[in-house]
Parts: sequence; C-alpha cells; structure tokens
Amino acid sequence: MIHLVLLSGGSGTRLWPLSNSSRSKQFLKVLRDADGKHVSMVQRVFGQIRNVHADLDVTIATCASQENSIRSQVDGDYALVLEPERRDTAPAIMLACANLALEQKADAGDTVVVMPIDTYADQAYYDGIMKLDAAVQGSFADLVLLGVEPTYPSEKYGYIVPTSSESDPRRVERFTEKPDEATAEKLIGQGALWNCGVFAFRLGYLTGLTAKYLTADDFEGFRSRYAELPKNSFDYEVVEKADSIGVVSYAGQWKDLGTWNTLTDEMADETAGRVVVDAKTCENVHVINELGLPMVVAGLKDAVIVATPDGVLVTGKEASANIKKQVAAAAESRPMYEERRWGEYRVIDSSVFPDGAKALTKELIVRDGKQLSYQRHAHRSEVWTIVSGTGEVVLDGLVQQVRAGSVVNIAAGTLHAGRSLGGNLHVIEVQQGDILAEEDIERFGDYWRA
Amino acid sequence: MIHLVLLSGGSGTRLWPLSNSSRSKQFLKVLRDADGKHVSMVQRVFGQIRNVHADLDVTIATCASQENSIRSQVDGDYALVLEPERRDTAPAIMLACANLALEQKADAGDTVVVMPIDTYADQAYYDGIMKLDAAVQGSFADLVLLGVEPTYPSEKYGYIVPTSSESDPRRVERFTEKPDEATAEKLIGQGALWNCGVFAFRLGYLTGLTAKYLTADDFEGFRSRYAELPKNSFDYEVVEKADSIGVVSYAGQWKDLGTWNTLTDEMADETAGRVVVDAKTCENVHVINELGLPMVVAGLKDAVIVATPDGVLVTGKEASANIKKQVAAAAESRPMYEERRWGEYRVIDSSVFPDGAKALTKELIVRDGKQLSYQRHAHRSEVWTIVSGTGEVVLDGLVQQVRAGSVVNIAAGTLHAGRSLGGNLHVIEVQQGDILAEEDIERFGDYWRA
Repeated sequence: MIHLVLLSGGSGTRLWPLSNSSRSKQFLKVLRDADGKHVSMVQRVFGQIRNVHADLDVTIATCASQENSIRSQVDGDYALVLEPERRDTAPAIMLACANLALEQKADAGDTVVVMPIDTYADQAYYDGIMKLDAAVQGSFADLVLLGVEPTYPSEKYGYIVPTSSESDPRRVERFTEKPDEATAEKLIGQGALWNCGVFAFRLGYLTGLTAKYLTADDFEGFRSRYAELPKNSFDYEVVEKADSIGVVSYAGQWKDLGTWNTLTDEMADETAGRVVVDAKTCENVHVINELGLPMVVAGLKDAVIVATPDGVLVTGKEASANIKKQVAAAAESRPMYEERRWGEYRVIDSSVFPDGAKALTKELIVRDGKQLSYQRHAHRSEVWTIVSGTGEVVLDGLVQQVRAGSVVNIAAGTLHAGRSLGGNLHVIEVQQGDILAEEDIERFGDYWRA
Repeated sequence: MIHLVLLSGGSGTRLWPLSNSSRSKQFLKVLRDADGKHVSMVQRVFGQIRNVHADLDVTIATCASQENSIRSQVDGDYALVLEPERRDTAPAIMLACANLALEQKADAGDTVVVMPIDTYADQAYYDGIMKLDAAVQGSFADLVLLGVEPTYPSEKYGYIVPTSSESDPRRVERFTEKPDEATAEKLIGQGALWNCGVFAFRLGYLTGLTAKYLTADDFEGFRSRYAELPKNSFDYEVVEKADSIGVVSYAGQWKDLGTWNTLTDEMADETAGRVVVDAKTCENVHVINELGLPMVVAGLKDAVIVATPDGVLVTGKEASANIKKQVAAAAESRPMYEERRWGEYRVIDSSVFPDGAKALTKELIVRDGKQLSYQRHAHRSEVWTIVSGTGEVVLDGLVQQVRAGSVVNIAAGTLHAGRSLGGNLHVIEVQQGDILAEEDIERFGDYWRA
C-alpha cells in the first residue's frame, strides 16, 4: 500500500501582499483547473493526485494556522497531522510517519511517498508516485528520490548525481548543492537531476530512524514530545546519512510558483478584481485588486500590481523576486485579511491617536450557520454594527437577536459570541483599546451546539 | 487702482484619484514654496501675487463647492464671489465685475485684471499685471491680453497674432485657435503669442457689455438673476467682439499642471505617504499614497502611482494624459474624500448586499471647536462610534457628552449634529439604507452658537 504525505509549510512573504502570515501561497485561488474553475495550488495538486489513483491514501502534515484553509479547500478523505510548532521538514515527516504507524495503523512494509504541496508540475510528475512505490517495494534502495531532468544549468538547485546513465531506477552516487554554472553544465552532462524534495521509503525505515530520538505508545504521546525531534531538514537528517539511495526521473514542467514572476506565468487571468487596464498601452501586466477601490492601469510593461487589505505592491516582473527587504520595511506586523473557521475578516481602517489610544475597524463575514467562539478580550472594547443578515449575539450569557441595523456594544472583559442564521452575517466592528492584537483573546469553545 | 479677479473653476478628473468632483487640482498640496513648505497651486499663486504688491486688491470668483477649500487655504484680505451655478467664464467674470461695481464700489475707470488661479508660471508672469494696468490706463486698447512667448509650435493652444513685432504693448490683428504644426510654426515666425486666458480692461468697459443682458441696483439682485447671463466663454463673448485689443508679452514658464505628467515635473517630493520605493530598480517614479495601507514599488521607470480613498492609479507618465475613458469607466460616482467646513471625511468601505441593502463606512474628523450642521437624512440610519476626542452630540434636541468609546445610534429621520470640544473628534460612521448619497441631507443651520 502507498501512503502519500503532503507537506504544507511556509507562509512566505514573497507573494506579499496576497500572502501574509496567515494566508500561504498554496491557498491563493489564482490558477485554473481543466474545467476553467479558479483553483489554488493545493486544489490543483489534489486533482492531479486523484488522477493517479482515486483512492490514494493521503496525509497532510501542516501547522495549526493552516488547518482552516485546508479544510475549506480540500474535500474528501485524508488525514491531517498538525505540527505543534514549526520545526523543519525532518520532524514534520517523522510526525506524519508516527501518525501513519500509531494512529492509522499502517504496516511497516508500506511505501511512504513525501511531496511538497506547493509544486506546479505536469500529471507525469504525480504518476511518478507509482514508479517510486515499485522501486521501494522492489527493495532497490532504502530511499528513492524523484529527480527532475534539468532544462538549463541552474545555480539555484540541488543536483542528484546517479552512478551511470542506465534506465530508471538508478543508484545515486552523490549530491551537489547549488553548483556554479560550469559545474552544473558538467553535472547535467553526467545525467544529473534536480532534487525536487520528493522522497519514498518503507514506513518502517523512517520509524526506525525516528526511534533514536523518540518512541511512544500512541500518537498523542508522540506528538506531545515533538520538541525532542531534531530541528533539521530531511535532506541533512535522513538523505545524507542513508546507505542506499535510488532515483527515478521525471521530465516535464516543474516550478516553484513562489515569486510573482513565476506565479503570473501560470495565472488563470491577467486581472482579478475591480480594475480597468488600458490594453492599448499595457503589455504583459498582471493585476490582482482585492480592495473595494476602483483601479486604473495604463502605459506599463512586464509588471505586476497587487492590492489587498495587507498593502499595495507595484513592481516590474524582473524586480519582483528581490523585494523581500522592501516588503519587510513596509508591511504591517499583523495580517489584514484572514480566513477563519467561521468565515473571514478584513481590516478596513486602523489609527493611532496622539494620546496613544488605538482604533481598528474590521468587516467580518460570518458564514451561514457558523459561529464565532465564545470569547473575551482584556484590552479592547468592540462595537458591532450589523449591516446585513440575521443572527444571534450573546453577551455574558444573554442572547439577543440581531439584524441589519442592530448595534452591539461589547466592553472589554465581556464574554461574547455571534452566529449567523439564514445567510451570511456582515458586521462592521470597531475595536478600541491600548492593545489591538489577534492574540488578545480568551476562548471558551462554542456557545451554541453545531 | 487695480482689481485682480482670480477664476477658480474646474474640478477635472484628469488628476484622478487625487482630484475628484469635490477636490480640484488647484487645492492639492503637492508643490513646495520658497521656504520648503508644501503648498497648493492656489497658495503658490497667492504668494506670487503678494510679491507683485502686498496690498493688491483680489476677488476670487468660484462656485460654492470650493468655498471651504479656499477659506482654509488662503488667509488675508480678499473678496469671494460665489457663482450660483456653473456656467462659463464670461458670466463668472461679469459676476465678479458686478461685485466690484455694486458691492465693493470700485470706480468704473479702475483696471480689472482677470487670471486663472491654476497656472504654474514664474514671478514675471504676475509682474505682467503692472504692464497690463499701464496699457489699460494709457487707453492703449479696450482689452489688453497677456501673451506667452511660445517655446514650440504647439497644436493645443490658441495664438494671439499681433500686427507687427514692435515692442509691448502691441496691437492684436487676429486669433488662431489650435493650428496645425506647420501653421503654428509660421505664426511663431510672425511673432504670435499663446493666449493664456489673462485679460485686462476698465471695469466700466465690462459692466457696459453686461448691461445688455442684465442690470441691477445691488449685487444680490444681480446675483439672483445669474441665469440670464450668456453661457459662453469670455473669449467668444467678449474678446472676439472687441473693437481694439492689445497684448503684452511674457517669456518664461507657463504650464497647466493638469496632467500627471506635467504635475509630477513640479512636485515637491517624489513620494508622499506610506511607501517604500526601491531606489536601485526605480527611475523617475512618483508616488502619492493617501491610503492607510503600506505600499512597495520596485522595477518601474517613468511612472506615476496615486492611491487615495477614491481609487488607485498606476500609469506610465506618457500614457497618463490619455486615461479619461478608463477613469470614467472605473471611478465611483461619489467622492470618497472631502474637505468640509467642519473637517474632513473619507469613505473606508462600501457594500451592496444581495437584497439591495447598502452599507457605507466613513471616518469623520471633526476639527477642534467645529460642528456638523443640524441635519437629518430621509433614507439612511447612521451609527457613530467615537474613537478619539471629546465633544457633544445632539439627537432631536437632546444633547449628550461623547468621548472615545461612545456609541450614538441615529435612526433615519432623526435630527442630529455633533461638535468637537478640546481637540479633534474622530468618528467611525456606519451608514445603512436604500440610498446612501451626500445629497440625502436636510440642513437646519448650526445647533450651537459659534
């Protein structure tokens, strides 16, 4: 049996302001599937995986902050393994394998294939899963990698050097990390492949390696001791120390859509949101406008414009890969848009006054039938003005009906929750206080039974 | 005696989204005066006029919507003449002259010099006022114009063709409107000058011409019959029919800062507001960001980026002159930022819901000691959350004290006003109703004595 482990990490600010500390690039719905529907990278990858085998067993390893996004984007059967904290790829894979062994009761002889969730590749890449499984089950090597056939002598990638150029699977002789161009050229001549972070092995192989750090009788016991696992990448912790390594090759598209330059190449539409682009004077311009404001674009070439509640980016495509420092200098320290279990919010205004007082205005959309957890804030009051929909609000145990026009005044320290009944509930929330942070929240579960 | 009449017209969307139907380009504080202080075109022109003569008598002719902006930007002594409705330059000048004659009791023999308020020129241009006065008082002609020495054969301007090339003042033989380049070239060879809309005459000359349409005993009587004046430009109504016309020349800068291309040439700073521009990859890029959002700009050349509550414009400088259609297609039909007598507001969010209900969220800043007029709205309710400052709110005659944290619920039809006491009062206002327009307002003067 094959168990596919998908690693969903990163939060990256390279796609700021569309991605932020809460919304990672793999959840942005900017691609298009075969039916022309907008999909995210996660959804695209899941579609390709289901094409390999409709019942392929899937486990997603990620962190708690991505749980909402995955649950809202991916339907069907899969296991979700949440890392208690961000460490590195080796512990994340060890945790997923512990879940397979201890919770899902997978057999030690089963094949595990590990893949990043944010790769943009052809279907053949995912079809490689079956070749990896065959090599593992045929005991070709302890560890079998997928190698991408290079299209140019890149200095940015790691190279897998096989012993000879015979057919797949091949034995791996050594690895070379980010060589200079001349060396890369030579390596490619020798049949070297790019390392794309896809690893296959028998479950028992990895649980064996994990045992030197940590053993537990059940998964929760294992998970609670996650901090004892080495903070190391899988490449350094496992691949470099492996006795026998094989590689299976893949020829086709393989991209990291982690920069505006690469992402816009694959974007479903040249524009999204409210924008008028002057076609006569613009060329190769991509625009995403998630603000409520109108936008006009004229006289630009090879540029990307992205406007969201987190900020506005206007950049030439070539320059877009090197704006990390500028974004760090400009960006807010808090996310201005987040998807939540109950819906979404966006910050529409924030002010700091001369006396140090702060105010922050948000629009909340509570989805039909959903509720905000029963909660209180130590440092801020909130005024909710309901502008659309109907629902209920509870304040210190007292429930009231609300509808468009209702105003609810929530003093600091007051327990409160809200839910939508019959359509989405839209709320304008004005926060005031000395500290206005998402972290200032004490949660007491759900007030209403689901 | 000289009376200078400044025409402050236009609202133009050519500088969208910085200018809108309420904020005209001449009030944008994007220039810098000799002391390095940010000034608007209006303030720059007033500085130059005061350099001609500190006590020059000034009358500004404008419309009611600009009164607040002029009063807040221009100190000192001047008369403000408000057109009851927008007509054209001929009636505006006739109205200003009627004010001079009937209200200010100016002498029929006095010189009147008319100038647009939004010209960007050197001091010598304004020094021309004295030369125009000399020509008028020397009875050189009924009408004396200022002509700008052309720097290139423009096809966009009107040309004043003098009879010969003798020295100033010269007699005008004819006018040519927007000639083709070859004709322009020829005209320049004959000593032709650009018509810059500056006219000088004796007050009695114009009141005489006005008398065929309208006479009145006092200014208010005259003003109340403004609609009887011809809707015509001064050029067609007066200049074309004049018996004797003279011209005085001016050599120097003369610009209409009415497009982003020309305005950014004279802008005090390359950036204004919250923005990080990557100097290594940007060249000749101007950015104005009036949004509360951070902005990052990289890899652009010869571009203008302007973000305000009215919208976002990203344009190459060359293309910026031809975006009228795009702006018309994109822009909101209502202003999203306005200066008011009592302070300012900006729209921070607006939504239309599936059931047709609308919501609009504004931030109001009521300046210290100022008040909103006592008013009511037929179609909308308002919820005011005070987020900073202290003041008073009155609802149907009932006064309450307000401070940060106060919430005021104003139902449709309720009479209300607010004032700030001790510092600026910041209010987040949530409007709801079927019609959300500035026009839905019935005013009952001021509730509190000033």
